[in-house]
Amino acid sequence: MNCNINEINPKKIKILEGFWGNRNQLLADVVIPYQWDTLNNRTEGVPLSHAVENFRIAAKELDGEPEGTIFQDSDVAKWIEAAAYSLMYHPNSELENSIDELVRLIGKSQQPNGYVNTFFAAKGIEQRWSDLEMGHEMYCAGHLIEASVAYYQATGKRKFMDIMIHYANLIAEEFGPEEGKLHSYDGHPEIELALYRLAEATEDTRYMDLADYFMNIRGSIKRNQGEITAKEEMTPRSRWFESDYFLADKPIREMTEVTGHAVRAMYLYAGIADQYRRTGEQRLWKVLTSLWDNLEQKRLYITGGIGSQSHGERFTVDYDLPPDRGYTETCASIGLVFWAWRMSLIDPESRYADMVEKEIYNGALSGISLDGKTYFYVNPLEINPRIVAFRQDMEHVLTHRAGWFDCACCPTNIARLIGSIGKYIYSSTDNSVFVHQYISSEVELCIKDETITLQQETHYPWNEEIKISLRMKHRKRFGLMLRKPVWCDAWTLEINGIAYDSWCLEKGYIHIDRIWSDGDIVRLKLEMAVKLFQADSRVQDYCGKVALMRGPLVYCMEEIDNGPQLQELIIDSQGNFELKEETLQSMSSVNILLDGYRETIRTDNLYQPMERNEKTKVRMKAIPYFQWGNRVKDQEMRIWFRIA
Amino acid sequence: MNCNINEINPKKIKILEGFWGNRNQLLADVVIPYQWDTLNNRTEGVPLSHAVENFRIAAKELDGEPEGTIFQDSDVAKWIEAAAYSLMYHPNSELENSIDELVRLIGKSQQPNGYVNTFFAAKGIEQRWSDLEMGHEMYCAGHLIEASVAYYQATGKRKFMDIMIHYANLIAEEFGPEEGKLHSYDGHPEIELALYRLAEATEDTRYMDLADYFMNIRGSIKRNQGEITAKEEMTPRSRWFESDYFLADKPIREMTEVTGHAVRAMYLYAGIADQYRRTGEQRLWKVLTSLWDNLEQKRLYITGGIGSQSHGERFTVDYDLPPDRGYTETCASIGLVFWAWRMSLIDPESRYADMVEKEIYNGALSGISLDGKTYFYVNPLEINPRIVAFRQDMEHVLTHRAGWFDCACCPTNIARLIGSIGKYIYSSTDNSVFVHQYISSEVELCIKDETITLQQETHYPWNEEIKISLRMKHRKRFGLMLRKPVWCDAWTLEINGIAYDSWCLEKGYIHIDRIWSDGDIVRLKLEMAVKLFQADSRVQDYCGKVALMRGPLVYCMEEIDNGPQLQELIIDSQGNFELKEETLQSMSSVNILLDGYRETIRTDNLYQPMERNEKTKVRMKAIPYFQWGNRVKDQEMRIWFRIA
Repeated sequence: MNCNINEINPKKIKILEGFWGNRNQLLADVVIPYQWDTLNNRTEGVPLSHAVENFRIAAKELDGEPEGTIFQDSDVAKWIEAAAYSLMYHPNSELENSIDELVRLIGKSQQPNGYVNTFFAAKGIEQRWSDLEMGHEMYCAGHLIEASVAYYQATGKRKFMDIMIHYANLIAEEFGPEEGKLHSYDGHPEIELALYRLAEATEDTRYMDLADYFMNIRGSIKRNQGEITAKEEMTPRSRWFESDYFLADKPIREMTEVTGHAVRAMYLYAGIADQYRRTGEQRLWKVLTSLWDNLEQKRLYITGGIGSQSHGERFTVDYDLPPDRGYTETCASIGLVFWAWRMSLIDPESRYADMVEKEIYNGALSGISLDGKTYFYVNPLEINPRIVAFRQDMEHVLTHRAGWFDCACCPTNIARLIGSIGKYIYSSTDNSVFVHQYISSEVELCIKDETITLQQETHYPWNEEIKISLRMKHRKRFGLMLRKPVWCDAWTLEINGIAYDSWCLEKGYIHIDRIWSDGDIVRLKLEMAVKLFQADSRVQDYCGKVALMRGPLVYCMEEIDNGPQLQELIIDSQGNFELKEETLQSMSSVNILLDGYRETIRTDNLYQPMERNEKTKVRMKAIPYFQWGNRVKDQEMRIWFRIA
Repeated sequence: MNCNINEINPKKIKILEGFWGNRNQLLADVVIPYQWDTLNNRTEGVPLSHAVENFRIAAKELDGEPEGTIFQDSDVAKWIEAAAYSLMYHPNSELENSIDELVRLIGKSQQPNGYVNTFFAAKGIEQRWSDLEMGHEMYCAGHLIEASVAYYQATGKRKFMDIMIHYANLIAEEFGPEEGKLHSYDGHPEIELALYRLAEATEDTRYMDLADYFMNIRGSIKRNQGEITAKEEMTPRSRWFESDYFLADKPIREMTEVTGHAVRAMYLYAGIADQYRRTGEQRLWKVLTSLWDNLEQKRLYITGGIGSQSHGERFTVDYDLPPDRGYTETCASIGLVFWAWRMSLIDPESRYADMVEKEIYNGALSGISLDGKTYFYVNPLEINPRIVAFRQDMEHVLTHRAGWFDCACCPTNIARLIGSIGKYIYSSTDNSVFVHQYISSEVELCIKDETITLQQETHYPWNEEIKISLRMKHRKRFGLMLRKPVWCDAWTLEINGIAYDSWCLEKGYIHIDRIWSDGDIVRLKLEMAVKLFQADSRVQDYCGKVALMRGPLVYCMEEIDNGPQLQELIIDSQGNFELKEETLQSMSSVNILLDGYRETIRTDNLYQPMERNEKTKVRMKAIPYFQWGNRVKDQEMRIWFRIA
């Protein structure tokens, strides 16, 4: 595998006006301030976060006990990280001051040995590492480290990162293979990703060693042995919370199926990818591709949602993908972006960037409302509010986005994904530039000692056209690799107004190898036909059904447009599909009008001999899945429909 | 409503060779002995019952504490009741001795004041009635009373009934509207039915007064107030276990929707029917028909299964009938037989006897294996064992029948249903005889002072022909009311070999009003076409699908006949249906061969653009639903199929 693919310094990437430019503006204007208020218990009508207060308590500037989940610190961390990304493009001294003040508190809460955690500080830090399975200490540490690196990269301020280096050094002192250290790992992966990131920022590979150690020890020590002292009474114990839930049922080198808690799984697999990029150990690559194949071929919702079961928020078995009872957590979709991105840095096959695209326009993005103030934790593919409101096996499903959660991991996670969207657009090798995502943006990168500026202009995902302008001082030969999305069968390519066909398709990328000049303009038109998708028939829920897609967007239908009892609707595969531009909360969108039928059966009792049922012709309206639930609350929504 | 419909003395009904004759033989030869062994902890490889042992402990003939569920006594009671029915047709002195010995133990366990309950006796009888909500004391009392009446009717032995009269008198002394008594009721209805039965056996209507009191006080006192002292720690508390679970959220006269725990609901509604038959209070009839309509039109599985949710074993909301996650408890189907039968004694509309028929050939009967030794508690309409084995929201589903259960209410309940099947065949008024069920049998009844013997011969439900022979001393004019099953559109009728068409259809019964003579022979042929049934499209799970029925039998398909991935199969509605007689465990049965298609979609990933999929023509085989899981264990089974 080609591991010589470089990430681009995020400061060299600018998001321009467009779909993501708007989302980034919303992040700066609404999401960051709203979440800051909420983390400070200033939002009415939502569960109190206590997350900032907990740091104030730990800093001994406030009396009290920390409140919230045991991993509440991570909400603060993820918010800082999101804010740091936002600051790169939207300077805001007030926001920076808030963060600096928060960093001061975090610093003040730090123990002399470096330890930072508001919950375990309250217990007494001698209790640290006493519940590695469910205590989430290193999970919180990881998020704080990631935030500190991001804040350093955004502002050049090192104070936060220095605090976290002190903490990371403590962890390195206390854990590791050496005698006298704790031989263990955290039940929720995250520290691994953070340590890799810290190693890159500090150019200190010892953090990578520690991350690798944490990954490699998994599955090789028994739970509740050695230093893992799980508190049985804290830990829900059932067969869905066994060691596979923690991704600790086997060593990582023996993993073949995506399993366990979906977020934990994604974070771990992303970590394994980091390890492989560092070490090149072929066995790890085999593991990664096996896991990926299993995910993509057997355990993935069409929206990019993952985790088919609420209990344990986890993967179940192959082909078990119920549309109405999955967990499909926003954080899991985000985690899959992390993993997919790392895979594309190892092996630039388009399927990895296709997955990033699937998530950022569907499964992950549905986690946040268009106004930025409400969130889904669970992203169902089908909602019947009357049934959801009653059934115990749907208790985890919300029929509308909420302003916050008791366990609020998702809102700040989607914020940092939006803030860091630039990261996923480009990468480069010594002699080529990859365009993975079609997002209006500008990037400055260096190929063969030449600084090249590449600018994308597009109304993607609504429109099929992408204009790429190149600027450079000297003519230069290099490859431009444009992802051909998996959903796209036909495209046209022009360079400087002339059709260009000397490309070749390489692992799903349109490879243009030529000598480029300043001012060159590439126009790519990706045909965005409306398409009906069917599922492998081993997925029992979707037999005889189709889902509507256009471009990267999965579409759904809502009660507000199509009336109740959506299950009665049948899509006419021969019908006419009409694109309809509409604006929803200032987002100009493309909806789809389509032909179909409504098959209404009303019986005297529930069941009657089959008749040739009257089917009423109907014109239906589908909207992008990520937009569902933005106009009304608690109505029916559905993605999969019968076909005629 | 005509309430002058008489039940027939069960001793006047004989089940002859045929479908139910065989089931009754199995009951006597296998089921009763197997269950007796199991109740005595003598069956290997199944959860220990302890039920008989508990009585031995309560009788102080054995040391120890009672074990099992708090309502374990009821298993003994229901077994005695089943055995009593069996003894009416299969005299067995050994069995009678066993019961007499058991009655001796029960008598010895009785407290001086009359109280009988092994669990509360162990706690100290001053603890009696201390947990009316979940303690099941009067539920157990009710079953013991029913058993004692059945044993008295079967054998003429009064000892057991006298014991229970003593107990019933204690209950009457301690509960009631009078000052100084407890103003409460049992959380699980059953005592009401038992008191009615005891009143009929003893001709003492005070027991009916008490039963009416227990029904009428429901919903009028608050939980945990007055004398109801629910032990919070014993009682699972969630919104599915609120007062509606106990059928106590409102007074019975305000009930409109079937709700709560399905078995509790059925027993209560049966009790309300008893009260209406006694009092004729029109409001109760309105309640009963509203509840019935709600059940039949919105909350019933096609198999007769009821209770759509495991948590709370309960009803959910209208049209929520998932095929794979329902509870559809055997006991609930049996309870519906009790209620339906009482409804047909009030208003002889065929829909009530149709419901009895639906249960005894489908939802209830599937609860017992053909060999009589294994049982379903939950009767799913669809099984994918691979998924059931993993999913937490299907934890309640078994993919094969079990030899016994920790909570073993169903096995003895299905035994007493089989034993009492004769009860549901006939009823009479002053001038007519109703034939509700087509079961080879003989009945002696009295119409207008004339003793009439009516003999049915039929291979129903496999065969469409029913022969009814009448014997009497004197010519007599009376009405013969033959149920026209709801599934039957065409029939022929002959009397003494000559086509007869002077009948009229009255509330679903073919009413033949003529002067009958000794030796008259009626031949009824009910056309048993194979039919495809569709559901009201408000039931989202069955849109675009059909279920196969022939006569009263719902058919299913199993993996053993049709291969795995049953969801890929599509029934050809224009195809050929062939009846195939086959013998399964000495039951000669009629299976159905039918045309259809298998639509197999194999994708590279899970989803792909829709193609014109190859559909392979297949010949499929369907078997009666009640027979599923009798040839193999843990395989796929399905009732609802797509249609082409």
